[in-house]
Parts: sequence; structure tokens; C-alpha cells
Amino acid sequence: MSMAINVWWLVTVVVVAVHSASAGVIVLKWEVEYKFWWPDCKEGIVMAINGKFPGPTIDAVAGDTVIIHVTNKLSTEGVVIHWHGIRQIGTPWADGAAGVTQCAITPGETFTYNFTVDKAGTHFYHGHYGMQRSAGLYGMLIVRSSKERLRYDGEFNLLLSDWWHQSTHTQELALSSRPMRWIGEPQSLLINGRGQFNCSLAAYLNKGGGVRQCTFQKDDQCAPETLRVEPNRVYRLRIASTTALASLNLAVEGHQLEVVEADGNYVAPFTVNDIDIYSGETYSVLLRTHPSPSKKYWISVGVRGRRPNTTQALTVLNYVDTPDSEGPTHPPPVTPRWDDYDRSKSFSKKFFAAKGYPPPPKKSDDQLILLNTQNLIDNHTKWAINNVSLSVPATPYLGSIRYGFKSAYELMKSPGKSFVKDYDIMKPPVNPNTTKGSGIYSFPAGIVVDVILQNANVLKGKISEIHPWHLHGHDFWVLGYGEGKFRPGIDEKTYNLENPPLRNTVALYPFGWTALRFVTDNPGVWFFHCHIEPHLHMGMGAVFAEGVDRIREMDIPNEALGCGLTMKWLMNRGRR
Amino acid sequence: MSMAINVWWLVTVVVVAVHSASAGVIVLKWEVEYKFWWPDCKEGIVMAINGKFPGPTIDAVAGDTVIIHVTNKLSTEGVVIHWHGIRQIGTPWADGAAGVTQCAITPGETFTYNFTVDKAGTHFYHGHYGMQRSAGLYGMLIVRSSKERLRYDGEFNLLLSDWWHQSTHTQELALSSRPMRWIGEPQSLLINGRGQFNCSLAAYLNKGGGVRQCTFQKDDQCAPETLRVEPNRVYRLRIASTTALASLNLAVEGHQLEVVEADGNYVAPFTVNDIDIYSGETYSVLLRTHPSPSKKYWISVGVRGRRPNTTQALTVLNYVDTPDSEGPTHPPPVTPRWDDYDRSKSFSKKFFAAKGYPPPPKKSDDQLILLNTQNLIDNHTKWAINNVSLSVPATPYLGSIRYGFKSAYELMKSPGKSFVKDYDIMKPPVNPNTTKGSGIYSFPAGIVVDVILQNANVLKGKISEIHPWHLHGHDFWVLGYGEGKFRPGIDEKTYNLENPPLRNTVALYPFGWTALRFVTDNPGVWFFHCHIEPHLHMGMGAVFAEGVDRIREMDIPNEALGCGLTMKWLMNRGRR
Repeated sequence: MSMAINVWWLVTVVVVAVHSASAGVIVLKWEVEYKFWWPDCKEGIVMAINGKFPGPTIDAVAGDTVIIHVTNKLSTEGVVIHWHGIRQIGTPWADGAAGVTQCAITPGETFTYNFTVDKAGTHFYHGHYGMQRSAGLYGMLIVRSSKERLRYDGEFNLLLSDWWHQSTHTQELALSSRPMRWIGEPQSLLINGRGQFNCSLAAYLNKGGGVRQCTFQKDDQCAPETLRVEPNRVYRLRIASTTALASLNLAVEGHQLEVVEADGNYVAPFTVNDIDIYSGETYSVLLRTHPSPSKKYWISVGVRGRRPNTTQALTVLNYVDTPDSEGPTHPPPVTPRWDDYDRSKSFSKKFFAAKGYPPPPKKSDDQLILLNTQNLIDNHTKWAINNVSLSVPATPYLGSIRYGFKSAYELMKSPGKSFVKDYDIMKPPVNPNTTKGSGIYSFPAGIVVDVILQNANVLKGKISEIHPWHLHGHDFWVLGYGEGKFRPGIDEKTYNLENPPLRNTVALYPFGWTALRFVTDNPGVWFFHCHIEPHLHMGMGAVFAEGVDRIREMDIPNEALGCGLTMKWLMNRGRR
Repeated sequence: MSMAINVWWLVTVVVVAVHSASAGVIVLKWEVEYKFWWPDCKEGIVMAINGKFPGPTIDAVAGDTVIIHVTNKLSTEGVVIHWHGIRQIGTPWADGAAGVTQCAITPGETFTYNFTVDKAGTHFYHGHYGMQRSAGLYGMLIVRSSKERLRYDGEFNLLLSDWWHQSTHTQELALSSRPMRWIGEPQSLLINGRGQFNCSLAAYLNKGGGVRQCTFQKDDQCAPETLRVEPNRVYRLRIASTTALASLNLAVEGHQLEVVEADGNYVAPFTVNDIDIYSGETYSVLLRTHPSPSKKYWISVGVRGRRPNTTQALTVLNYVDTPDSEGPTHPPPVTPRWDDYDRSKSFSKKFFAAKGYPPPPKKSDDQLILLNTQNLIDNHTKWAINNVSLSVPATPYLGSIRYGFKSAYELMKSPGKSFVKDYDIMKPPVNPNTTKGSGIYSFPAGIVVDVILQNANVLKGKISEIHPWHLHGHDFWVLGYGEGKFRPGIDEKTYNLENPPLRNTVALYPFGWTALRFVTDNPGVWFFHCHIEPHLHMGMGAVFAEGVDRIREMDIPNEALGCGLTMKWLMNRGRR
């Protein structure tokens, strides 16, 4: 099949924040609660918003102000929501990272997130406290451009996630136990919150294959959403992955995909048969429908990057005049081999900024080299960055810094900008032990920072895992990927400084390094962490404080800081 | 077997708070966290204190100050601990009832409970937020007298509880769902946190009975604690029930029990073969061992008051010279028929105050008649008191009243002191619907209040359930029990005003009433509720504010009030 998706660029030069006079205000009232649900045709418990799983889609226009009153209707648990991909320029307290930018909202309380969605993009939102993302607290966040440069006839959202039958409470405990109990691979993959456990939509094509054919009752919560399309049209698929663990590959049978957006930034379009998508990433792809088919085609989502033990998630692309009773006539696309990392890297390296994006600064003012290791603390399994496993304190960093607590200065003793020169990343650590710490990296405003993520061998065996790293408060340029150990002074020369893509999430491949650059132009405290939920739970993160002087002058709502030391300080100042 | 337990009374007159010059200070540091545990030989998750389940026993002397630094090591949940039976005279903020006397302690935070244990008694402590008590957050709290009036040679604590395999998170959701999903009977009963699911210690005595014989590995967390005794001695068994649901009966094979203490108050001793014990109650019983046996005897705990579906909990009373390999040679005591309410009431009516206790005031200044009904709110099943199902607000009552918030005055609009005269307690409610409310009852300091608990038929069928009611901050006199509907002006004449027992928990029997009296001599806000955890979760409670003027002058630690309106008020007053 020849590929002929055309992209019409409406504007080719300016990609800036749009604050038009006509900017609107979107006001939402959300209640977060647990609900019984059947995400994969087996009953479980999800975190629902206003009774819905996944949560409602936010559909905004660049420049809009979004005001979301989030009420915690849980019995005993706190909650926060992070607006993944929104940079929160000037509103770091609305970033929704518990312990970093705010206190968790306690049961019965309401916290108001009030922020501007400054530029168009495909985003999502999710819980950022404990493992509440994995419990199902997520939804899509679409920011449209009032002058969209892409042309298409229709669009669909595909929010991808993974699902366990064990509760996240149990998972959290298992991961924290000594010895650690690994949560294993997910029971199901979900597309828009719908998956099928222990059966396949496509089993009828593979009779005797041993997998049961899925059947559904009307209104089953696990019945797939079919994408109904017309012939000879262009559709935008907005795809986001909020998986707790799984790296995914998505394909549409018989159709190619033109990748046009990544993490809310336009990219130079390129065409592929399938896309890899890591947790925390979003893509827009354009799909041109065939001229005159009366058929159904599979959309398949499978696991890559880890040895899979989870059935492909499937749904159907359905041309309008196809009878409902017929299924696709061919088997679903086969997910590429999970450990074909060359293929994965090749996909990552296809990304370049779209025309019109200015190049990154040519030089950096500061450089961090962050070693990713799996370690032990008192026989608890942990992940560490430069030999420190992050322990987020009870008082949000943003508050400690705002009020200049002594502890804040302690916190600003970072784990170190690099690691020991002779560390052998190809072998298990010589000393498997590490320490817990709450230290953060502090940068002045207005400088250029390079971060090199350095992968390494895990505790045992000859294994190195994929880690998709996500930075809050920023897009960053992905300057390059490399094999083995980063060589300072040498590998910088391989950086793409011409047209690197802007992203907020990037993969670190096994035994390799990934380099990224950002400008500290957004005063605040920003979480930077592996987006794999259990890895973050086990300490795989860092925190960047940016423009501390500016933070100290910020008018942060008290409601964001009603816990820990900030609460004590704020409550006691009236007594002086 | 003749019963010959002797009780030597050392003092017979004075029963008052002892604040001796030698009063000590007990300082404890506790960390609350979840742990994998095998309470009934099946793995589950418990709330542990310092890694222990049940939590450590507090062993104090009357007059001691107890200071407990409770650190919340949970991931996302708040926590509090209630010191059940301690009246918290002058320290209502240390009572540990979330939403009533304090804000839940958020993860990572430490709250310090600092209170005086003013008089001797057998007590326990437990979680009082969500259903955390049922999750295993409990332990014994023993307050000794420096001049103990009872004589005995040794003592044992028996903390009784019930255990479900479904997590309390799931149970909470199930109970709140529409339609409500009932949690069912417990999977196991636990004695000091140890039970046996799906097997019996006594199966060898009933070969072919279909029940498996329990076997244990060394150090199994579910292996029963044997009570090792010497012949011809007197032992004090301190028994507390912290069950979520089950009403229990305890018997010791071949031994009689002399009841000497109830809920931390001495009672006129009486001898029985077994005791009923409802959730929230404590007893001390004296047990005289036989002169020269070399045997083991069963201690059995079984369910009463609800149709049982849970195996008896068993442990062994073991005379010192009995070989470890031998078990008891007789079958365990049979638990009395669950619905023999006459037997249950007969036991309750055996209680009279010990000599030396002054009688209650002869008259009351105020009277509440509280109708207990099962109802619907928007098809959620609820329990209601005088047609209001209690919804505890996010801001603790104690704080709202202390700072005189407008909302506090709203809250002090109580559900009403009585119910409609023509309500037929013998039939399902004509109108099954009720409303939620947060209203409380307010009393001036220093008055005498009578509370008549009135039982009624549930929503469907001809059923009325047992409810053990527990009052915080007080002991009360149990003035009497009656059948059917309380007749004001008539039934008061049947009250025992001479030597009624002082208790903090009392049973309300099916289709009957129970009358109690207390003096409002302890300014504070006190929870009064059915001690059945799911019933409380479904709104079966009331709140008494006592001496509001005095509360408004209290120096309540800010740390108790760091949530909701009080937090906002305390944080903002510095800005004025």
C-alpha cells in the first residue's frame, strides 16, 4: 500500500504561547472517588472522576485559563492531579506533584487548580501521589490551536494504560517490602480505559489458538470503543500513554501513520507502520483512510521493552458502511519483538523539530550526568540517581523554599552533578547499597542546563531496563542518544543542535545514555523522574529548583501548603 | 465443678482518679505502616505499629502521663489513634477521633498524643478513621492501680478481633456503593491477632467432622498463644473486643469466670461459665486454676448476636506440667445459640457497680431519645439516628467550636432530641429515606444527661440488630434495658439508680431500648456511636459538644487542627 498522507501546514514559523484576547475560561468541578469498575471485563476498583473512568477529557484552546476544583471524596487518602505536559508558567503550585509543588488534598477538601494552557498540544492528566495513577486516576487534556497548522477531517483520542488485578495499595506495599515483591507484568492493556482479560477480540481468526473469543453485553465497561471513519479522509489520532510500567507499540492494520506531534510539540512529519510509545509520552499521528473500503481493521497495542506477559489490546477501525456483525478479516498486527532495541532507537531517532522551531542554545551553562542504578537500602530494593534514592519529604519543596526554611537549604544539597568516573555501567554495582535522600538540584534563572541520563546494569544478571524520564514545568530538547558510558567532552560533539525535537518525556535505553537540554526560564520546583510508577515509588527521581530568588517572592496559595512545616509556619506566624 | 474464686478487696470505698506524686511519664514513638501478615494463616495486609500486629501493649499506672509520638508511615492515607476508655479529661484534642477531635495525621507527619491515664482499668486503643480499626490498627492499653483492690497471681491479655480477607478499602467502597454490598461475616476471629482460617485446633477431637486440623510451623504468625498457668492460682484475664462486627462469647473449658471489671470500672463480682462481649467492651475476669491437673483446656471465642458463619477462635490454657505434645482431651465449649437474646440480656443485667462507687445523680437535666434506624439515601444504605445519618465534616468539630466558626453554629443544630411519637419500631420504616447531616448535640457543662437508645426494625423483614454504643470522654451509668418502645414518664421508673454499672460501651438489643446517664463534667466534643465499624461508616453515630464556653478558651495544639476551616483560619490570621 502506498502512503499518501498529506500535511498542510497553515503556519510554518511561529510557535509561541498564544494569549489571545478571546481566551476563554474553563471551569470544572471534579470529585475523585473509588468505584467498582470492569476495565478488562473483570471487576476491580478504579479511581474515578465524577463517576467516570477514565476521567473526563479536558478540551481547551491555547490561551485558555483552566480552573478545576478537585474535591477529594476518598475515605482516608489524599489526592493530587498533575497536568502532564502543561508547563505551569508562573503557577508552579498548580503542577500537582505531591510533596514537590503541593500538599495532597485531604479527604473532604477541595483544591483549585488554576492555570493557563499556553500552547496547543496533546496532553493528559493523572494522579501523582503514591501509585494513584496506576489506580486509574487519569484522562486526556487536549489543547487546541485557534490556528491549527495541521489539516485533518476528524480526530480520536487513544489513552493507553496498563491494568493490574492486585490493588495499588497492595502493589505499593509489595514494592516496599523486604525483600521487594515485584508487581509483575500487567494483567491487561487498556485503550481509553477498556481492555479484555483472558480473551481476544481476534480469537475467531485463530481458531484452536487456545484464546477465548471475547463476548460483551451491551454497555459493558470493557467493550472496546470502535473508531468509526469515512473513506478517503484524514484523521488525527491523539495518543497518550499513562501506563504504570509497559512500553507500548501501536499499529493500525493496513494503514500507515504520519507522526506530526510529540509531547505537545510539532515534529517534522514522518511515516511509519507503527509507533513505540513510552509511559508519559504523547503523539499525534495522521491516518488517511482508504478510498472505498467496506472493512474493519485492527488497532493493536502490545508490550515492548520488557518480556511481555500481557495480551495485545485491540480495538477496531470501522469504515462507516461496514456491517456491525463483521469483524476484521485479517489477524491483528504483530507487535515487534520486545527486545529489538535497535528498532526502538531507530524510531526515537526519527524525531526532529518541525519547521519554525528555533534551535536550542548552542552551549550549556551547567551539566548534570545522572546515573540510573538499581540498589539496596537495608535490603529494600530501590532505584537511585547518582547513588541517592529520592525520598520526597512531607513538606512540599516549593513551600520550604518559598519560606526559606533552614531545611530548604539542607535540601538544596544535591546528590551530586555526576558519579564516580570508574563506575562500570555494564556490570552489577560493586557495592549494591545506596542511601535515601531528599536533596534537590538548584539552578539560577535563565541558564541553559544539560542533563545526561546514564543507564547501567541492574542489581543482578546482565540486564539494563528502559526508563522513560519526564520533566515537569518544561519542554526540553533531546540532543542525542548514545551507547555505553557517556564520555564528557567527546559525546557532546554528537549532539543535534540544529533541529532536535522538543519533548517532555524521553526514553533512556539499556546500557546507553540520553542527553537533553533546557532553559531555566520557569521559576518553580520541578519533578524530573522515571515515569514508570513502581520505579518512581522506589526512588527513581530528582527535583530541580529553578530561580530560587523568584520562588521566594511568589504568592503561593496557602491551600497548596497546608501540611508539614509550611502549615506549622503559616499557622504560627499569627501568634508572633 | 464447684466455683470457689475468692476476691480479696483491698480497698472498698474510694474509686477516684489517682494523681500520686510518683506518677510517671511513658514516652513512646510509634510508626504506623501496612505490613504483609498472616493473621489467620492466610496472607493479608495489616496496619502495624512499629512492625507489630497487634500494636504494642501500653502498660501504665493510674496517674501516669502517656506521650505517644505517632508517625504516619503510610503512603497516601491519613491515620489517627483513639484511646478507647481513656476519658481525656482536659485533653479532648488527644481523643483521636478523626473529624471530631482532630485532623487525620497525614503521611510523613507525626502527631503527639499527650494525656493522663487518670484511673486504673483495662482498655485498648484503635484506629478511628475510615475502617482502619478493622484493618488491624489496635492494641491493649492497661492502666494499673498502685493500690490494686483485686488479688491475683498472674494475668493475661486477650484482645479479640475479627478478620476479613477482603481489604478494608474494598469493604469501605462496597458499603458505600449503590446498592450497598454487605461485607458479610468475618473469615476469622483472632485472639491477640492470631486465628486459624479453614481449620480447627480441635479437629482431632472430631475425626471425620470435615474440618481440617490446623498445623503450624515454628514462629507462624497465626499460631495461637498458649496461656501457661500453674495449679491453684488466680489469674486475671483482661479481655477486650475490638471486633469490626462480631458480638462474641468467650468460655474457658472446665473453669468458671468471675467478672470483676467492665470497661475500666470495677463491678460487683459474679460468676459465670462464659461471657458475652460486644465490640468496644472490656472485661476483667478472675480464673482460679484447679489444684492438681496436668491437662490442657480450651479457651473458645464464638460469634453471637448474628447468624454465625465464622469458626470459633481457640487457644489453650496449659498447666505447666502438661506435655507440649498433648492437646485438650475434650471438645471446646459450645458457643451459646446466637439468637438466644434472653441469655444475652440476662448477662447484661448481672452488672452492678462494685462497692464504693457513688450512685448516679437521682435526676437528669436533659434527655435524648435516639432512634436507631436503617435507611436509604438516594438508594445508598445508611444507618440514622433520629432520622439523620451522620456525616463527619472535614473540619473537626472541636476546632470549629474552639474558633467559633459560623459553621459551628450550624453544626449545633442537632438532629432532634426525640423522634416522632407514632413511629412503629416493630416494622420496617414507612418512609425508608433519610438525610445526611453533621449536626451535633450541645450540652452546658455540669448537667446530667440521659440518653435512651431506641432500637427498631431494619429496612426489610422482621429484623432488629444489636448495636454496641460507645461514648468517648466519659463513663456512663447503665440505668436499664427494656423491651419495645421506650415510654417516657413511665419507663424511667424502672431505672436502677442505686448501683448501676459505670461503662463506656453498652449493648442495644433488638426491638428494645437501653438507658444511660452521664454528667457533662468533661468539656470537649465527644463521639457517641455504634462500635460496629461498618455501621459507623454508614452514619450510625452522634456527637456531643459539652461546655462550649470552656472549649472556646482551650489551648488546643495547632497540630490537631491542621485541616479544613481551622487550618485556613489559622494560616490566614497572620495576614490580617
